[in-house]
Amino acid sequence: MTSTSTDFKEYLFGPWKIDSDEVFTTSQHCFAFVNLKPVVPGHVLVSPKRVVARFAELDSAEVADLWCLVQRVGSAIEPYFGAQSLTLAIQDGPCAGQTVPHVHVHILPRRAGDFERNDEVYDAIDAASKDAASAHKGEHLDLDKERSVRTPAEMAAEAAQLRTLFN
Amino acid sequence: MTSTSTDFKEYLFGPWKIDSDEVFTTSQHCFAFVNLKPVVPGHVLVSPKRVVARFAELDSAEVADLWCLVQRVGSAIEPYFGAQSLTLAIQDGPCAGQTVPHVHVHILPRRAGDFERNDEVYDAIDAASKDAASAHKGEHLDLDKERSVRTPAEMAAEAAQLRTLFN
Repeated sequence: MTSTSTDFKEYLFGPWKIDSDEVFTTSQHCFAFVNLKPVVPGHVLVSPKRVVARFAELDSAEVADLWCLVQRVGSAIEPYFGAQSLTLAIQDGPCAGQTVPHVHVHILPRRAGDFERNDEVYDAIDAASKDAASAHKGEHLDLDKERSVRTPAEMAAEAAQLRTLFN
Repeated sequence: MTSTSTDFKEYLFGPWKIDSDEVFTTSQHCFAFVNLKPVVPGHVLVSPKRVVARFAELDSAEVADLWCLVQRVGSAIEPYFGAQSLTLAIQDGPCAGQTVPHVHVHILPRRAGDFERNDEVYDAIDAASKDAASAHKGEHLDLDKERSVRTPAEMAAEAAQLRTLFN
């Protein structure tokens, strides 16, 4: 069922290609990449290499590999970004706010007081998901200063920094 | 490191005992239980039997077992509650809204239009987490009709229904 190890060719995020410059660590079945529109410093994503929309479509080896990579990434980035906690979430399907039909775990380093109310972090995840999907599609974005889509160079630079945590 | 399989005696959720009537399915290292204060129908929790506060404290066998159980529970309850998606989330540490210092995955069956804006589901999770912690501690709760803490009998009845999905 899981054929990614042998026939893997490129990093895909739903219908879009992810530049390998934006990937900062990988595992047998999964990869961790920086975010077009992070809602807090260090907000990154982990996805299976195989493009499937729903968490239920992963086989048990992929489930284990995905979450062991999330654990490894979370443990590295939490102190790196001066955080004390993590928000870990999957929007598993369109009715849960998923905008890209490819399983992805949001990892957000959290600091005391980073949002006035804790739940505001999710408003931001949802807004960022919608904007990221629009940006990938080339749609117009109504951006304000706080929520600008990053350039490929900015994303590659962050990934290069993060890559040093996993050598 | 993981000693739960041999010396497991009772279901604990942080400092509190969970009645086995409220547990509806288990795995080698984890258990799934109904929620004192569900924010949508079918909002349930999955925890490791071993009481640890942070996701990083789980060993790889526990990580795999936890998320395979989440996958199994999610796949069963989504159709049972007439839902089309799932919200899967861990508030991993106090700065992420965690109120009970024991790893727990929130599983919420999601339906189109169940919240006016998708992110409102997280407001509800956070409010419910705070109220559940207060209720466990025996603190006064300012309850309204929509957000009442359930009785042990109500929770046991729901767990008995859910248990039939896993036989």
